[in-house]
Amino acid sequence: MRTTRQWVLDRRPEGRVADADVRLVEVPLPPLEDGAFELEHIHLSIDPTNRLWMSDTAQAAMPIQLGRPVRAFVYGRVTASRHPDFRDGDMVRGLASWSDRSVLRAGALIPRRRGMPLSAHASILGMTGLTAYFGVTEIGRPAAGETFVVSAAAGATGSIAGQIARLLGARTIGIVGGEAKARRLVSRFGFDAGVDRRGPDLLEALRAACPNGVDVDFENAGGVILDTVLKLINPGARIVLCGMISGYEATGGWPTNDLSQILMKRARLEGLLVSAFADRYEEATSRLADWALAGQIAWDVDISHGLESAPSALARVLAGRSEGKQLVQLAPDPWDEAA
Amino acid sequence: MRTTRQWVLDRRPEGRVADADVRLVEVPLPPLEDGAFELEHIHLSIDPTNRLWMSDTAQAAMPIQLGRPVRAFVYGRVTASRHPDFRDGDMVRGLASWSDRSVLRAGALIPRRRGMPLSAHASILGMTGLTAYFGVTEIGRPAAGETFVVSAAAGATGSIAGQIARLLGARTIGIVGGEAKARRLVSRFGFDAGVDRRGPDLLEALRAACPNGVDVDFENAGGVILDTVLKLINPGARIVLCGMISGYEATGGWPTNDLSQILMKRARLEGLLVSAFADRYEEATSRLADWALAGQIAWDVDISHGLESAPSALARVLAGRSEGKQLVQLAPDPWDEAA
Repeated sequence: MRTTRQWVLDRRPEGRVADADVRLVEVPLPPLEDGAFELEHIHLSIDPTNRLWMSDTAQAAMPIQLGRPVRAFVYGRVTASRHPDFRDGDMVRGLASWSDRSVLRAGALIPRRRGMPLSAHASILGMTGLTAYFGVTEIGRPAAGETFVVSAAAGATGSIAGQIARLLGARTIGIVGGEAKARRLVSRFGFDAGVDRRGPDLLEALRAACPNGVDVDFENAGGVILDTVLKLINPGARIVLCGMISGYEATGGWPTNDLSQILMKRARLEGLLVSAFADRYEEATSRLADWALAGQIAWDVDISHGLESAPSALARVLAGRSEGKQLVQLAPDPWDEAA
Repeated sequence: MRTTRQWVLDRRPEGRVADADVRLVEVPLPPLEDGAFELEHIHLSIDPTNRLWMSDTAQAAMPIQLGRPVRAFVYGRVTASRHPDFRDGDMVRGLASWSDRSVLRAGALIPRRRGMPLSAHASILGMTGLTAYFGVTEIGRPAAGETFVVSAAAGATGSIAGQIARLLGARTIGIVGGEAKARRLVSRFGFDAGVDRRGPDLLEALRAACPNGVDVDFENAGGVILDTVLKLINPGARIVLCGMISGYEATGGWPTNDLSQILMKRARLEGLLVSAFADRYEEATSRLADWALAGQIAWDVDISHGLESAPSALARVLAGRSEGKQLVQLAPDPWDEAA
């Protein structure tokens, strides 16, 4: 009988994920029935939302049930198939779990783009890049010359969102944790400025960086960061609510926000779930790949090796210590020409 | 020298407006220069926003300066004019103050509609009705069969918003303070149900009234009312942020809200300022008048008499004691055929 190693959720974390919350086990793979295929996982996508799925708070997806595997997006290779759309050797993105392999009934084929390793398909061309793309182009819609602010700006989604906004002609300001990250926003990602949220007065620092106010906020953090940005919004501002990382590990419920400026500035705040744009992934991926291959968007991946490292990789993401899109790599990247 | 009586703001209120915060004085009218006209006030529109303007919180309009008149929308008759667009006897809506008369340089002519007293132009056909109209039709956009919730639903704006939503085919639920008002929503305004926010468990009462969840929320209250509605929103819900009455008299800053469900349900929350739709007032007024004259929308006015009563009329509005659109009437309504 074929087996896989797999992280299961034993207990709902309080605050940070503790060792006793998750457990690495070996379990039998389900039989390969008609309509299913087996996927060898090459990259696990490690995202703040993995932490959210571990909580039983009301959320877009179902919370992970206790005793069940830790849900995650994975990027890998089909090793056996009884599904008409997937063949041996196909590269596929699937919603699976922190495990070596899985048996799935659905997934998205990944067409090869020369010059792009699979890790790029798991970051700028994956759910991360798509989230940034649709959040900026469909909800935020910065016009040329407008001021675009993004929080968790050095993170995988934030850094791409800011660069897309810059390509659309916006003045782009990122909020990050630490001076080094703030400098990197400018030097690596071409932002107009980076603001350290840990500085002595975030409001004044942000005001200085946004002398014309804020027209679009791409919000990943929530909580006090969002409250600070809201104090500076212009009439008609758009707030793309992409994430509320500040609340994912909170134990006393979600942080709350003062909405008065949304009323006073007839602003719009909209929750972004990338799956609402699923019918346009292909168009977006193609545009992102063009930008990436032309050198117009930079992206970093932060690769941790081995399934054992998944919990610590998630901790890195949530602590803001990942230097780019966080992946856990389980097998050689077949499209990495540098490897 | 011509004079007018006028309420001025002496001190910013803390909580409820106290006697010492405002003062009734007699002041000279400014001279009638070229481009100005004199307006005799017939109805003062008394609105929650009057209270907001008394605060120095960041807001859409400028706060009223101390020592200056209490700003208000007024509906009256031109008694002298050196403005090319306004003639003696014209009926005009203006942004003026709690006073008997004023000298203005701008205003909106009110075309007579048979069967509609001036008080109707100050309620369903005035800023109140326009606010309800654009909030429902442009931001909330309830589809037939969707569930529409409105807070402060027995109030001037809420009762009209709910009726417009019902005319668009929505299931309409109002949140009010008290059982009698809840019943009146159904009997007088044709809502599907009214929910008393003072009951033992608002969330459960609202859940029972909205078995299919909430698709559109027309929010006048903010605070815990909004938090409760947000717990029940459906994917893609629209929240029209029209007012936050719960915060207008708050002394410790604005109430705050948990935005997590806006993220999880990819909902949209948008601040409504009716002036954003100023170029479409005529079209909206005409449609509202058609509905009103056909008996498809009911509206009530709660008239208080005499300029002295303006502060107590505002207190009635903020306490939710007004039975319809609150006006202060200063002179006979020339278009009231019943009078």
